[in-house]
Amino acid sequence: MTMEKILWQQVQLVKQKSPLVHNITNYVVMNNTANALLAVGASPIMAHARSEIKEMIGIAHSVVINIGTLDEYWSESMLLAAETAHSVNKPWVLDPVGAGATSFRDQVLQQLLQYQPSVIRGNASEIIALAKANTTVTKGVDSTAQSNDAVHAAQILMQHYHSTVCISGETDIIISPQQSFFIKNGHPLMTKVTGLGCSATALTGAFIGSVEDKTLGVAAAMALIGIAGELAVQQSKGPGSLQVNLIDKLYNITEEEFIQNLKIEQK
Amino acid sequence: MTMEKILWQQVQLVKQKSPLVHNITNYVVMNNTANALLAVGASPIMAHARSEIKEMIGIAHSVVINIGTLDEYWSESMLLAAETAHSVNKPWVLDPVGAGATSFRDQVLQQLLQYQPSVIRGNASEIIALAKANTTVTKGVDSTAQSNDAVHAAQILMQHYHSTVCISGETDIIISPQQSFFIKNGHPLMTKVTGLGCSATALTGAFIGSVEDKTLGVAAAMALIGIAGELAVQQSKGPGSLQVNLIDKLYNITEEEFIQNLKIEQK
Amino acid sequence: MTMEKILWQQVQLVKQKSPLVHNITNYVVMNNTANALLAVGASPIMAHARSEIKEMIGIAHSVVINIGTLDEYWSESMLLAAETAHSVNKPWVLDPVGAGATSFRDQVLQQLLQYQPSVIRGNASEIIALAKANTTVTKGVDSTAQSNDAVHAAQILMQHYHSTVCISGETDIIISPQQSFFIKNGHPLMTKVTGLGCSATALTGAFIGSVEDKTLGVAAAMALIGIAGELAVQQSKGPGSLQVNLIDKLYNITEEEFIQNLKIEQK
Repeated sequence: MTMEKILWQQVQLVKQKSPLVHNITNYVVMNNTANALLAVGASPIMAHARSEIKEMIGIAHSVVINIGTLDEYWSESMLLAAETAHSVNKPWVLDPVGAGATSFRDQVLQQLLQYQPSVIRGNASEIIALAKANTTVTKGVDSTAQSNDAVHAAQILMQHYHSTVCISGETDIIISPQQSFFIKNGHPLMTKVTGLGCSATALTGAFIGSVEDKTLGVAAAMALIGIAGELAVQQSKGPGSLQVNLIDKLYNITEEEFIQNLKIEQK
Repeated sequence: MTMEKILWQQVQLVKQKSPLVHNITNYVVMNNTANALLAVGASPIMAHARSEIKEMIGIAHSVVINIGTLDEYWSESMLLAAETAHSVNKPWVLDPVGAGATSFRDQVLQQLLQYQPSVIRGNASEIIALAKANTTVTKGVDSTAQSNDAVHAAQILMQHYHSTVCISGETDIIISPQQSFFIKNGHPLMTKVTGLGCSATALTGAFIGSVEDKTLGVAAAMALIGIAGELAVQQSKGPGSLQVNLIDKLYNITEEEFIQNLKIEQK
Repeated sequence: MTMEKILWQQVQLVKQKSPLVHNITNYVVMNNTANALLAVGASPIMAHARSEIKEMIGIAHSVVINIGTLDEYWSESMLLAAETAHSVNKPWVLDPVGAGATSFRDQVLQQLLQYQPSVIRGNASEIIALAKANTTVTKGVDSTAQSNDAVHAAQILMQHYHSTVCISGETDIIISPQQSFFIKNGHPLMTKVTGLGCSATALTGAFIGSVEDKTLGVAAAMALIGIAGELAVQQSKGPGSLQVNLIDKLYNITEEEFIQNLKIEQK
């Protein structure tokens, strides 16, 4: 089977399984990420109360932790969720929003990393900051050439925490011990809609909660939102309508659209 | 007057009164429910600080409590709001989101029920869980036939808490001591938009804050969102545009559209 | 240069500078205001944790404080942010949502005012309540004629706190010691979309973080959202599509559209 067909198969698996995805995410994107999850066939749960996190993770297929609007209460919830997911072996994805911006973020991220996220998804500067904040690997990152910083940082994170790492950007780079993917889908207008990176993370949560091969799942999630975004841009007058059209396209994308537009390289 | 005309009259009463509706609701739907309230002519207040709840309820015409993203702080706010609404005789509606999912939710819901919500609106599994969580009625619910579980649970809640109960689903069932309504409006695509149930609850809050007969108000609110949803689906390419078109249609629905599309039975 | 050209120049300055705008705002509007900021070329930060506020303000060009859904934790964050912005001389804008509705709001607002917001933007009743809550000026406000209440209140606030004050409404009135502007853009349907006032405040934050003359910046921000709103209404079927079309128009508005539609008077 071609890689195109294999990734489309992952998209179908999410629809078939309809995974419960437990999100502890930021206020800005809760509505959009819930709608993105529904559009691909998943069922979102948004819950952060420390009193119920363990039970929620018990019924969920996967967990999404996004620190965008963290505070002292929410960071405790996130740590409890990460610890629980790790201990009961539920796949979880970390979105280190704003890594490197403040020492509070970096401290919370360092603690979260101890629970070995199945997947880490961030932009290049967040992935670099995340690896740098890990003081034991600082030299490794600092000594890399500028252009390779994010890939090197991703490799360090992968090795230390046994995570699949996704660096999102003009090219999405997905790195795991077994394989790497380079995906060139998406459109610059997507950066003018708040939280599409967070939506990519949420979809990643749905895919790793539904499919066997987690790295394939991440690749399929990133390909799906990239292609849906490209197609949605064609019908949009600006970022307002893009936000709406993207949800529509995540919902009604066809196999033909997915396969004809996918731009992927595997290494 | 026909039932169709009577319900449309309720819709007009909301526009005339423009009720202040005080919402303590979940983060995911705050924007959408505020826009749904504005679209039907109500004025939303979103406020949860314990330091101001009593004053806010003093100026509001009705109160909406939705536990979707509750935590320990917010549950205290909700209890204070329910107690205040009950003691000063303001109509209030409870949306027991995720009832039965965790013991924390069930405990908070049990406490909220003591303040006798004017209306309880949830899906079948939430209404069943709510009645079950009330340990004094467990047997009653457990012994009912599967297909009638939700109606039986609704009747138990109605009797214990003097509430009008609305079970939303393919058919919305509204049960009060005096009368029952069965409404068959709505469209399956509406389940792919996050929080349309929460919007139905918010509209219910607007209607019980505006009209004399609370049960008629609930019926009119559910009919309105169901019909507006059906009509909006016809112009939508997916759940993203449905979310937008539904707000437009709540705003510009005509008497003819309402009356021609209403599918209601009264018992 | 004409005033039209000068204001359009301010719009261009925001795009060129792409200011980081740190928002402590309400849950209802976070998504929309983030998208409005992105649409005009700014970069939103939404962060409220007391543990990171000082660092966040260190990297931001301006600060937006909007008390819409305040509580005891968030009000502490807002006070810390206002104090920090004031002490390190970063421009900041205050949106006193619901001023006068509860004593809690008024107490928090009184404390915030001590840190001399660069700009205060609210509707007439909020501006009046804000000046009234300042007990030392109660008489002044009470003694004004009804129709001039808001302008008089704005002048009092301007004098006491050295703020530029913007009263938004059918006519937006912007008052500073040096000059006043009266802007008659906008459309009544905009009041049916939740939080467009909050978006105006957020854009004000972007402009005062980018331009030299803060009062010109406020005028340009208010003109921009008013004109974009008018143009967006022409393509909208109701408030749902207006919310979407407004973001599109903030993004793709042309110099010609801005200049031909601006209705401004300077005094």
